[in-house]
Order: sequence, then C-alpha cells, then structure tokens
Amino acid sequence: MCSTQAGTSASLEAELAHVQAELAQLRLAAASSATAAAAAADAAPAACEPAGAAGRQLLQQVVREEVSEALELFAADRTGLPDYALAAGGAEVVAHSPAHLPSSASLLATLPRLHSGVVHPQASKLLLAPISQPGLCLPLVGAAGWVDVRLTRRIHPTAFTYEHIPAAIAFDIRSAPRNLVLTGFLGPPPPHPGPAANSSAEGAEALGVPLGSFSYDAHSRHPVQTFQLGPEWRQVEVDHVRLAFAANNGHPGYTCLYRFRMHGTPA
Amino acid sequence: MCSTQAGTSASLEAELAHVQAELAQLRLAAASSATAAAAAADAAPAACEPAGAAGRQLLQQVVREEVSEALELFAADRTGLPDYALAAGGAEVVAHSPAHLPSSASLLATLPRLHSGVVHPQASKLLLAPISQPGLCLPLVGAAGWVDVRLTRRIHPTAFTYEHIPAAIAFDIRSAPRNLVLTGFLGPPPPHPGPAANSSAEGAEALGVPLGSFSYDAHSRHPVQTFQLGPEWRQVEVDHVRLAFAANNGHPGYTCLYRFRMHGTPA
Amino acid sequence: MCSTQAGTSASLEAELAHVQAELAQLRLAAASSATAAAAAADAAPAACEPAGAAGRQLLQQVVREEVSEALELFAADRTGLPDYALAAGGAEVVAHSPAHLPSSASLLATLPRLHSGVVHPQASKLLLAPISQPGLCLPLVGAAGWVDVRLTRRIHPTAFTYEHIPAAIAFDIRSAPRNLVLTGFLGPPPPHPGPAANSSAEGAEALGVPLGSFSYDAHSRHPVQTFQLGPEWRQVEVDHVRLAFAANNGHPGYTCLYRFRMHGTPA
Repeated sequence: MCSTQAGTSASLEAELAHVQAELAQLRLAAASSATAAAAAADAAPAACEPAGAAGRQLLQQVVREEVSEALELFAADRTGLPDYALAAGGAEVVAHSPAHLPSSASLLATLPRLHSGVVHPQASKLLLAPISQPGLCLPLVGAAGWVDVRLTRRIHPTAFTYEHIPAAIAFDIRSAPRNLVLTGFLGPPPPHPGPAANSSAEGAEALGVPLGSFSYDAHSRHPVQTFQLGPEWRQVEVDHVRLAFAANNGHPGYTCLYRFRMHGTPA
Repeated sequence: MCSTQAGTSASLEAELAHVQAELAQLRLAAASSATAAAAAADAAPAACEPAGAAGRQLLQQVVREEVSEALELFAADRTGLPDYALAAGGAEVVAHSPAHLPSSASLLATLPRLHSGVVHPQASKLLLAPISQPGLCLPLVGAAGWVDVRLTRRIHPTAFTYEHIPAAIAFDIRSAPRNLVLTGFLGPPPPHPGPAANSSAEGAEALGVPLGSFSYDAHSRHPVQTFQLGPEWRQVEVDHVRLAFAANNGHPGYTCLYRFRMHGTPA
Repeated sequence: MCSTQAGTSASLEAELAHVQAELAQLRLAAASSATAAAAAADAAPAACEPAGAAGRQLLQQVVREEVSEALELFAADRTGLPDYALAAGGAEVVAHSPAHLPSSASLLATLPRLHSGVVHPQASKLLLAPISQPGLCLPLVGAAGWVDVRLTRRIHPTAFTYEHIPAAIAFDIRSAPRNLVLTGFLGPPPPHPGPAANSSAEGAEALGVPLGSFSYDAHSRHPVQTFQLGPEWRQVEVDHVRLAFAANNGHPGYTCLYRFRMHGTPA
C-alpha cells in the first residue's frame, strides 16, 4: 500500500506540478486577457460607447472638424479653386452656338445670319456665375453646341468644372450636356467652323489647343464635376476657351448650360 | 498512518481531479475571454481608438460620406425635390391678400378696392425663389392672409414646403405664419371669398381641393418644413394653389412670407 | 517512507490548497475579464465595428445630427446671429474713404474733393449683403480706409463679423484688410478726420465709442470671423458704426471689403 501510496503520491506530485504549470500559464493568460479587456473597455467608452458622454464628445469633435472643413470648401465655390471664367472677375461669353429662345423669338435666334453674331444678353450672367435656381441656364439649340469664353486673364490651364442643376430637382434633366470638349486659345477663337467646315485647311493656331474630351454624368449625386487636364498643357498659355458638347441627355430641342468654371495658374 | 495517508491521498486525488476539472473550465473561459478581448481590442483601435490612425481614418470616411450626402441635398434646394412653384421655372404669384407696404404706401395697399386686384411687383421673386436675406419676404397685412400661385405646370400634388428665415437671425420672428392651409385648383382660383363670404353657396370646383391644414413652427431649428399631403390627392390634377394662413406668431401689423415650394409628379 | 509520504502528502495538501486559492482568484479574475471583454465586445460592434451594421447606423445618427446642426447654422447667415448692418433690413453705407474705381474713373475718385462726399452707388449692396462671388466687394483706395454704416436700428453692440472671400478662390488675397477698428456712434459719425486731423481737439461724442481693434486673418481656413466686443460696451447705445482698417495684406493699390455684419441686442 505504502509503495502504492508512494507511487500515488509521486503521480499526485507530478499531476500537481502539471496543474501548477497550467495555473502559471492561466495566470499569464488571464492577466493578458484582463489587460486587453481593460484596454478595450477603456477604448470603447472613450471613443464610441453609445451612452458614453466622453465617447460621444470625441466623436462629435471629429465630426465637427470634418463638417467644418466640408462647409468651408462648400463656401469656397465648392471647388476651393479660383475660377478664371467668373463673370464677376471680368470673364465673358463672347460667342456661342444659336440660343434656344422661347416662342417666336426662338425662330429668329436660329436663323443662319445670327449664327456667330448674336450673344444671349444674359449669357455671362447665366453661365459664368454661381447657379441660382433651376431654369436659369444658357439654352442652346439642339443636342450639340459650343460657347466661347474670354477668361479673366491669361493662365496655364489645369482643370475645368462643369456643374448642372442636380438631377433630383431638375424639371427636365434631358437638356443636360453628356460630353464636353475644351479647346484653349490665346486671343479670340476663330469663328466656329460649323459641322461642314474643312478643319484641316486651317492653321494649328486657329484650331486652338485641344485640352481634352470628357463625359459629364448629369445623373451623378455629385453634379459639380471637375475635369483635370493633361499635364502637357500646364506650359501652354490661354486667355480664351471654347466649351463644346456633341450630345445631351436626350432632349430633342435644346441643351441648357448652367455653370462653367476654368481653373489654372496665372501665366 | 498509511491508511490515513491512503485516505489523505485519495482525498488529495479527488481534490486534484476537481482542481483539474476547474482548470479545464478556466482554460476554456480564459480562451474565450482572450478571444473576446482580442476581438474587442481589434475592433476598438480599428474603429475608434482616440489616437488610432486607422480608426480615425475609418471614422473620417463615414463622416465624409454623410457630409457629402448632406451637402448635395443642401445644394439640391435642401429638399431634393423639384419645385413646381419656382418663379424661374415659370410659376407666378397671381393674387394675394393686401400687401403691407412701408409708410404712406401701406395705407393705399389696405384700401378695399385694392383687395383682389393688385399684385406686389416683387411677389413672385420674393416668395417663389431661394431666400436671399432676412427682410426679403412678401409682407401681407394682418395675421391672416393668402396667396394664389400659378404653378409651372399641371401636377399631381404630393407635398409642399414652407421656409421662413431662421428664428435665430430674424429681426422679428412674430411676423412668421403659424399655420398653413393649402387648396388646389385646376385653372385660376376664384376671387378669395373673404371672411364674410358664404362659402356653402359656391360650387365644389370653385372651392378647390382642400389639400390640407398644417402647423408651421417658426422656432424650430429646422425652418425648411415639408408637409406631406394625403395620398388621396395623388390622383388629383392641379395647376394653381392657394396658400392661406389664419394666424402668425404674434405680430399685430403684418405677416411676412419667405419661400413656398410645391412638390408633386407631372400630370 | 510512510512518514516521508505523510510529509509529502502534507506538502501536497498545502500545495493543493495553494493551487485552489489561486484557482479561486483566477475564477474571479476570469469572470471579471470575461465580463469586461463581453462589455467591450458589446460596445465595440454597437458603436464602431467597421463592418457592423448597428455600429455604422449609430455613427451615422450622430454624424447626421452634427451635420444637420452645422447646416442649419450655415443657413442662418453662418453666425446664427441677427445682423443689424444688413442692407435688406434697412442698413446703409453712408460714407467711406475714396473708392477705387477702374481705369480713368479711379483718378476722379481719388480727387480730394470727392473724399467725404461720394458714396459708391453699390456700396450697401456690396458690403452689407451675403457675399455672392469673388470680385464683388467694395474697393477702397490704398491699404488704409474706412466705411460708415447706419445700422437697421439702435442696439447695444456685442460683436461684429467680417468675412472676406476664401483665400483659396480669391484672385488676389493681398487686397484683404489685415486689421479692423470699430467705432460706435449715436447719430451720424462726424466727417472722418483724416490722417492729419488733431483728434484731441474734438469732443468725446464726436470721437465715438472705441469698440475695439482686431486682427483679420485672410489666410485662415475660416474666413467668417466674428469679433466679440468688450462687455463694457453692452450698456452703450449705437445706431452707426465706423469700420476702419490701417493695413491690408500687401496690395499697393486698393483694399476690397466683402461683408460686414453687426451684432448686438435691440436698445
């Protein structure tokens, strides 16, 4: 018995040693667990516990900073960029494809002889100023057209922005342009060649600098869309641009342009 | 002794077995605890640990999306709904109760003969366009009055919005309307019957469609208040509405209306 | 052996008791750990787990409240304070230092005889109304100048706000004022003494109430800057103020003022 007991005792000792080793491990694990849990518990209420005043405060601080930054950008013409096509800064619509005018006046406007000569009296105020309301846009006949703008000064072009009224509040979003082609000029652009002109016969200068072709998504939730120009144009100098569009969103009669902004660096 | 020892040894073994069982439980609990703590610790820094760059980034992303969405709605006339009472879209104030005009002119305006004939020359610009500044509102004599609006087109009415200048910046919030009654018409509304008219003598058509009565809370922190019309009116067609109010917020002399928007679906 | 065993057994018992005590501690610690971990795990997904729908929802709610509040303040003239210098409320620019006018007209404007007599025809519309666009500001000759404003009513002055176009979109931020000095008057301010006048010869009334001198930071990300006046002026009554500046941000030719707001309580 005693030997058995001794054997038992030895095995008990061994098992106890094993238990003690496990206990030591558990102590470490528990300590680590407790630390982690405490840290997590600390972090959670500090930053985000639903009812935690401190967490809510921190969250509010982060949110307020973001909101404040977003509102300052919103108040900075939404782009945070100078607009060298701003009418109030001296820019002007100097020519455009025939305007779409209501009723009998529209017939006159589409007469060929008015093609390159008549500028809509409100053109600069409509296209080169902050959007005021739905309906106040520059209406041009058809699904394709163009506008020539004299900028406020000579610049190296970097980007431009087109903004349509948000689709959600538009009376008819079909009159929004669907693509945009920008050409830069130093000096007034030549008369628009029209669809039938033989452009290869003209000089490179008269053709202007092809700054780029872009798609405008009138149904986007972000109607203020800024298009970056290729870096190769950052050395070019322009003081006029022609904004053209070849398609709209399906309106058969006219396309209405809301706001054009031109960005760059002073030349 | 040995038997005692054996007994002791047996009880030791039993206790050891018990300890081992408890250890097993603790191991499980500790493992589970550690997993939970690790998960919480993982989650916390990822999403919200104060000094955690990753958490701050994620938070900023969520905030930016919310802010961006809110700003686009803000830019979409704040309602995200087309406004069929917009002057720039062709809507017009066609009649209203006598205007409150400053000084001697106001006496003229309140003469009975002007009651239904004279429209304030700025009425549409003041009431049917975005609010520009405190003070630029349509002032009507007294605490009760009405305005008739020709909409931009025929619609099925679903809701309307009234917006007063925020109470915080108003010079005198007492001139805000306190309740609003909207009536729809197909064709121009009949002359307003006035308080003494016997409305039961008129036909149902002349009475128009009673689109609803609502309370406007000028002291709310949300001055842009949209009122949903009953679903029973979604089949009705209207192209004119009469906005009436029977009480203001306490100004004895006049009530000043800032902005009215009409919502619906094209009929 | 048995005695040894007994000794062994006794030590085993002691060790077992020790193990059991440790186990009891561990049980408590583990329970506490588990509770903390569970709480943290609960809190974390609820408030901020990246992919947690509930956490995202709660976060969105907090953000929406903050954004909504910020937008209502933005819509409340950005300050949430009545502006007693608002042109639409009846305030008016009654005098100012010589205006900087373009081309030949500017020469006339700087003639001494025009010094105190001519008011820019758009002065009130430019300075005492919400900023519409870059470039639409009141341009005054030189780096120092002043403007006299008749307020909408008699007030106890508490603060004023100056707002320049954001530096990010300004064509030339050098024309922003760099410091602002506000003086209050009851009744029209006396003619500006000019730099050479002996101010000590004038009476206290003519000098007005020195409401304070402040720095305007045109390069701040928050261009709408409200300056609190000393509490000692809250008993004073004024109905005119003179806003003066002694330096701009470096433009040699002119300083352009965008928007001035006057705050206080009705007297």
